[in-house]
Amino acid sequence: MDFFFYPSSVALFGSFREGAIAREILRNIVEGGFEGKIIAVNPRGGTVEVAGKTFEVRDRLDEAVDLAIIAVPARFVPSLIDEIGPLIKGAVVISAGFSEVGNDELERELIEKAKKHKVRIIGPNCAGIFGVHARFFGSFEVRVKPGGLALISQSGAFGGAALAMGNEEGIGFSAFVSYGNAADLNESDFLEYFADDENTKAIALYVEGVRDGRRFLNALRYASRKKPVIVLKAGKSVSGAKAAASHTGSLAGSYEIYRAAFRQAGAIEVEEMEELFDAAKAFEMYPKAGRRVAVITNSGGPGVLATDRLEKLGLEMAGLSEKTVGELRSFLPPQCSVKNPIDLIADADYERYKRTIETVCKDENVDSLLVICVPPIFVPSREVARAILDANCNKPVIVNFMAGELVRDGVELLEKEGIKNFPTPERAARALHWLSLRS
Amino acid sequence: MDFFFYPSSVALFGSFREGAIAREILRNIVEGGFEGKIIAVNPRGGTVEVAGKTFEVRDRLDEAVDLAIIAVPARFVPSLIDEIGPLIKGAVVISAGFSEVGNDELERELIEKAKKHKVRIIGPNCAGIFGVHARFFGSFEVRVKPGGLALISQSGAFGGAALAMGNEEGIGFSAFVSYGNAADLNESDFLEYFADDENTKAIALYVEGVRDGRRFLNALRYASRKKPVIVLKAGKSVSGAKAAASHTGSLAGSYEIYRAAFRQAGAIEVEEMEELFDAAKAFEMYPKAGRRVAVITNSGGPGVLATDRLEKLGLEMAGLSEKTVGELRSFLPPQCSVKNPIDLIADADYERYKRTIETVCKDENVDSLLVICVPPIFVPSREVARAILDANCNKPVIVNFMAGELVRDGVELLEKEGIKNFPTPERAARALHWLSLRS
Repeated sequence: MDFFFYPSSVALFGSFREGAIAREILRNIVEGGFEGKIIAVNPRGGTVEVAGKTFEVRDRLDEAVDLAIIAVPARFVPSLIDEIGPLIKGAVVISAGFSEVGNDELERELIEKAKKHKVRIIGPNCAGIFGVHARFFGSFEVRVKPGGLALISQSGAFGGAALAMGNEEGIGFSAFVSYGNAADLNESDFLEYFADDENTKAIALYVEGVRDGRRFLNALRYASRKKPVIVLKAGKSVSGAKAAASHTGSLAGSYEIYRAAFRQAGAIEVEEMEELFDAAKAFEMYPKAGRRVAVITNSGGPGVLATDRLEKLGLEMAGLSEKTVGELRSFLPPQCSVKNPIDLIADADYERYKRTIETVCKDENVDSLLVICVPPIFVPSREVARAILDANCNKPVIVNFMAGELVRDGVELLEKEGIKNFPTPERAARALHWLSLRS
Repeated sequence: MDFFFYPSSVALFGSFREGAIAREILRNIVEGGFEGKIIAVNPRGGTVEVAGKTFEVRDRLDEAVDLAIIAVPARFVPSLIDEIGPLIKGAVVISAGFSEVGNDELERELIEKAKKHKVRIIGPNCAGIFGVHARFFGSFEVRVKPGGLALISQSGAFGGAALAMGNEEGIGFSAFVSYGNAADLNESDFLEYFADDENTKAIALYVEGVRDGRRFLNALRYASRKKPVIVLKAGKSVSGAKAAASHTGSLAGSYEIYRAAFRQAGAIEVEEMEELFDAAKAFEMYPKAGRRVAVITNSGGPGVLATDRLEKLGLEMAGLSEKTVGELRSFLPPQCSVKNPIDLIADADYERYKRTIETVCKDENVDSLLVICVPPIFVPSREVARAILDANCNKPVIVNFMAGELVRDGVELLEKEGIKNFPTPERAARALHWLSLRS
């Protein structure tokens, strides 16, 4: 499937008028910096200019390419596939109007033509794909930064929203695929593919329902053995399952069965959209973390909130060794608490944070660290960010800087160095929970 | 207590050097636009310039003011209160170094002097107060927009972080009080006060532990009868309770007792920091909402996620009347789903949203609406925002626009008109859950 996510050439089919889907995808591919060959095709010919580049629009495809992206009216798709089949390896069919509106016959025809030419299909009725490390943005969705997360989404709108929110959350992506009706390739194929993709560190899957449960379980197990797979299942409630069935045509099935399958396969199931991001952020940084957590904070309240959540999630507050406590006592001001959560009090500066992190990190009773900072007016958040980056520690460190404008500088600095911020103590605690599920 | 939150004059005590606490508070008061009298006091005299205004620093207070804000070293506070007691009604003691570090005797002395002069005390060891509608920002924390939320926080750092995050979430505040060691006035006093404050529509309380449980329960019940009271209890877990006890000196006590008290008093208990904001946003807009929700969306996936969460929270997906269904059918394209969740599909524009909201709002089986929009490239989010604002509907409408940069314009427009956005379907669903607890 490399021809989908690392293509060397692509042909686009559709209208290239202002605002049309094919034109928007062409724009995204060009602006994204794709270095392979790009061919625009429309029977009307002419030219199209996007992002300062002019493309001749060919009236038909007349050379071999890795990939076709198709956004022509549904009824023309099967014959187009039949026509260009000998020239392509795969096709992403954006066009809607197939089984999702009851046109099962048209979808069968599409697949028949594809099979005839051994062409693999993503879609139809999908939002397209990104191969981020190939700088290939074959979708009209918002472009994203390169990183380790492969996002597989049955819902195009969910996928698009998740990409835009991922940008805000500082997530880096390896790939995105919206697979729509899954007429040919489906979630199981993508799970297996990204399990073996070396740019992918973690996989996130939004799924409403699958057709072949056994195959799905196998694919999920295969992928989960190689890397973290985060799953958000929609259609868990009675009304939700009905709604899912009506808009994708897939049977959501009993949630209990899915839930058991997720657990059996070793996947990380999250309960809601925001958790999907938080888990993705955690796994982009670390493959796993043990259950014994040390909390380091400069303010009592947030430290208590983190502690409450960690315990509720079944994690342990690490019991610090006598040696660690003695060492902390030797350099921390007497008002600081050297019990876990370790309270460095409001005026904690670079040196106090750095030395505490290094001291605690050496303790054999500690698996991971949760570092909280609510910067007081006289300590810039950049200073504490720098301390976290400079501290010599080889264990997972999850960071919660609060809040808003007060920590913008510090969060920026951390993110530039690959440390993602969790905006509340509880979200940081949950990140450690998910990491612990892989240890 | 109006002299705290609507003062006509204030005196500040402390150092006015660059970076000093008293200077920062003075700056905040001046920049915030306080129109009352401001007096700076320090035995060394001199002048201080903040925000382009120069103040003479008096060597002692020599006229009556409503309020003193005190940030001098702890050991000088009792004698200062004794000296200025006849001239002030209340004092906010920012200074730390009292019971929270074992100096119980000094705190007792402070209260003794205050009682002698019938002066009420907030603090010591606190971050100060805001009376937002009086443009009085008597704290070094980030200033906030005027609105309906009164935030009462035992933890100063939590309070400061919550104000900054509140700004990002579009929350408007009526007041803020960090009450620190609660040597005199405590959470119960503030609950009672804000219950009767006409600018306050909802109260949010962060609490670790209270000393007088019976009084607290009464105050909470009194306030909850008048307006929504959102409570975040920290120190729920064993380790969390211990940590809370060590940094505030208050006994966290058994969480089960607190939980029962919250329920008995009719307070809205939230589980974590982010939920506090979401509940506050909901209650700033609406006092309550019924349990039968209609979901209107332009994308299936997010509609399903909202549905799942609503049902899990015990809300009902409203069963639309035949009349409503017929009316929707009459103007919606055939691909749209007119069952709840109502799917307007991706190209839903101003007219489709507005008419659907109005049609559904008239249905007697519907108590409240959850409106979701993931704008496709060809429909600007402002257009849908405008439809929501223009729609004639007198029932609570909770909005979930996704995501990030895609909806910035629309969210801005909504917020300007007082409609707050919830960034995920699940958070929007939870907002309706909290509203339903008051109905």
